[in-house]
Amino acid sequence: MDDSINPKLGWEGVFENDSIPLPMRRAGMAEWQFDHVLMLDRRRLPLEEVYLQLRCVEEVAQAIENMVIQGAFSISIAAGYGLALSAPQTTSDDIEQIELAAQRLIQTRPTGLAIARMMRACIKVAKTAIQEGKPVQPEILSLVDQAATVLAKQGYQTGKNACDLLADGSTILTQCFPDRSYVYLLMETARRGKTINVICSETRPYLQGARLTALCAQQAGFKTKVITDGMGGLLMRQGEVDAFVTAADRVCMDGTVCNKVGTYQYALAAQANGLPYYTLRQSGPDRESASEADIEVEYRNGEEIVNWAGVRTAPIGVHGYYPSFDITPPDLVTKIVTDRGVFDSNKIASYFETAEKIPGAIV
Amino acid sequence: MDDSINPKLGWEGVFENDSIPLPMRRAGMAEWQFDHVLMLDRRRLPLEEVYLQLRCVEEVAQAIENMVIQGAFSISIAAGYGLALSAPQTTSDDIEQIELAAQRLIQTRPTGLAIARMMRACIKVAKTAIQEGKPVQPEILSLVDQAATVLAKQGYQTGKNACDLLADGSTILTQCFPDRSYVYLLMETARRGKTINVICSETRPYLQGARLTALCAQQAGFKTKVITDGMGGLLMRQGEVDAFVTAADRVCMDGTVCNKVGTYQYALAAQANGLPYYTLRQSGPDRESASEADIEVEYRNGEEIVNWAGVRTAPIGVHGYYPSFDITPPDLVTKIVTDRGVFDSNKIASYFETAEKIPGAIV
Repeated sequence: MDDSINPKLGWEGVFENDSIPLPMRRAGMAEWQFDHVLMLDRRRLPLEEVYLQLRCVEEVAQAIENMVIQGAFSISIAAGYGLALSAPQTTSDDIEQIELAAQRLIQTRPTGLAIARMMRACIKVAKTAIQEGKPVQPEILSLVDQAATVLAKQGYQTGKNACDLLADGSTILTQCFPDRSYVYLLMETARRGKTINVICSETRPYLQGARLTALCAQQAGFKTKVITDGMGGLLMRQGEVDAFVTAADRVCMDGTVCNKVGTYQYALAAQANGLPYYTLRQSGPDRESASEADIEVEYRNGEEIVNWAGVRTAPIGVHGYYPSFDITPPDLVTKIVTDRGVFDSNKIASYFETAEKIPGAIV
Repeated sequence: MDDSINPKLGWEGVFENDSIPLPMRRAGMAEWQFDHVLMLDRRRLPLEEVYLQLRCVEEVAQAIENMVIQGAFSISIAAGYGLALSAPQTTSDDIEQIELAAQRLIQTRPTGLAIARMMRACIKVAKTAIQEGKPVQPEILSLVDQAATVLAKQGYQTGKNACDLLADGSTILTQCFPDRSYVYLLMETARRGKTINVICSETRPYLQGARLTALCAQQAGFKTKVITDGMGGLLMRQGEVDAFVTAADRVCMDGTVCNKVGTYQYALAAQANGLPYYTLRQSGPDRESASEADIEVEYRNGEEIVNWAGVRTAPIGVHGYYPSFDITPPDLVTKIVTDRGVFDSNKIASYFETAEKIPGAIV
C-alpha cells in the first residue's frame, strides 16, 4: 500500500500527521477539497490558523503571489491543485484554457522552477486524458498528490542526511523557512533522541524565520531563539552557532545557490568564522540552470519593505527596494544536502549520476 | 562671537538650523528649556514630530534606555542636560545627589563611553561651583552646550573629510543612523554641488535606518532607498554600492569598531566585494579601549525583537535574543574618518598625535 493514501500519516508516510509541525502537515501546504483548494494562510502564522478556500485559478495565483504560501516546492503543489480548477468538466475540457491557466501560475514567482515543471507535467497528463476521452481533473489531482508524496519522501531522506552531519546538541542558524527538509531534520533529530538548537533569523520583510521556522522548531520540541537579520554574523563570531543551514529556491549545476535574500551575507560570515554552510536541496540541482547567469532574481514591490502591520516605517516619498533572493557562489557553500546524499557544492552535478533513492519525482 | 549662541544656525555654526535634517537640528537632539529637558522622540519619526518634556533625572534616564534618543554622542548631550535636573537649587546643591544621578545616567547604555565622560566633566564643574558658592545648574548647562557645539564642529569636519573620499554621484550603503558626521556629509555634499545616493539598511528592530537615516538623506535632497538588513550584501555584489559607511559607538585603539549589530556582516560583504568600509568617528578612538576585550556589548530585552507595532511576530514561548552591537575587526575597516583626518584603522591610535582641529572636546 502506498503510505501517501493514509491520511493519518504525513505525505512522507512515516510520522503521524498531527505530530508534524503545522506548516508541513498535509493541511499545512495546500489541499484539494472536493471542488476547491484549501490553503493555510502562512502569513497569519504563528498566532492564527486561518484557511482560505480558493475557487478559481486566479485566486490561487494571487495567493501564491501574495505569499499566502511560499517555498519553491510548496508553491508548486499549490499551483498544481490550482491548475485542477481550470479543468472542472467531467468531459471535454479545453486544453488551451488549461495552458493559459498554467502560464498564469508560472508567472506568479519567477525564481524557482518547480511550478513550471509541475505545469508541464500536468499539461502532459491533461492532453493524454483528453485524447483518451477521460476527465482531466482527477488526472491532475492524482499527479499533484504523487508530487507531494515524492517531495515529502525526498525531504525526509534529505532531513536524515542532514541529521547525520550535525552532532547532538548542535546549534544551527537558519535564514527564511527552509521548508520540508528542515522540518524532517527536526523530526528525525527528535526520533533519534538527539537535540538541536535553532536560531532563526527573522527574515524581513515577511518574517518567515520568526513565524514559520521558529514555530516548527518549537513544535518539534527544541530550543528556539529569534534574531534580526543583522545579528547572525555576530553570533557566529562569538561561537554561538555550529552551522548555517538554509533551503534553496534554485541550485545551479555549478553549485551556485539562490535563496531568500540575506543568505549570501550569512554564507560569507560562516566562511569567515570557519563554520559550514549546508544547503538543503532535496531534489538536487536545477538542470536548466548552468550557472548564475541563468537565474532570474524576483524583485517584489518595494512598498512591502517600508510598510509593516499597517504602519509605514520610512518617510513618505522614500521608496523601498526589494530583491527577494540573493546569489551565493559555490565556494561559500560547504555541502549541498539532497535525497541522494551529501555533495560538495562544486560536485553537485554528479547528483544525476547518483542512484535515485526516491523514484517518481515530478518537480 | 561664538557661533554656538546664534540659535538660527546649527550647533556647528555654519548652516541655517532649519536647513539641517531634523534629527541633527538643535531641537532634534535634546534641548534645555527653562526648567526641563525637551527631547524629540526619535522613535516616532519620520511620521510624527513629538517632543517630550522630561522633568527629572529618572525620566531622562528612561528616555535614553527606551531609545527616545540614540547615538553614542547624542545620548551624552541628553544625559548632560538630564544631570542638570539633579541640581535645581540656586545655592547649596548636594554633590552626592548629583553623583548618584550621574551613576543612574551612565547605567542607561553601557557600550558607548561618551555619557561617562560627560558625567565626569559635569561633576568636576559642579564641585568647583559648590566650592565657589555658585549655583551648579548653569555651570552644567554651559558645559553641555559647549560639548554639543564641539561635537557638531567635529561632526562637520568629519563630514567634510568623508565628502573628500566619495566621488560625485557615489552610492553609499548605511547601517543604523550614522549621526552627525553623516548628516554633515550630506550637507557638505550638497554645499559642494555634488550628489550622493543613500541606501539605508532599515536596521531592525528599531528601524533607525528606515526612519532616521532615510529622513536625513531625503531632507538633504538626495536619492534614498530603504532595504532590509539582509539585502546589502546582494547589492554590493551586484555593483549597486560604492562604499559602506557607518558611525561607531566605540572605536578601540587598535582600530576595532563596535557599532549597531549588522555592521560586521556588511563589513565582511564589503571586503568580499572589494568595496571600502568607512567608519565615521568624529572624535577618534576611545583611549579607554585598547581592543575588543574592553568592549561591553549591550544586550537588550529580547521581547523587542519578537514584537513590533503591537504585533507579536514569533510564537508565544519563543524568545528573541538582542545583542545591540557587534564587533568589526580592524582588517575589515578600510578607513576611520575623524575630525583630525582620515586614518587607516590600524593607525587610528595616531589620532592623538595629530593636530587638534576642534579644541575643547568634552566627550
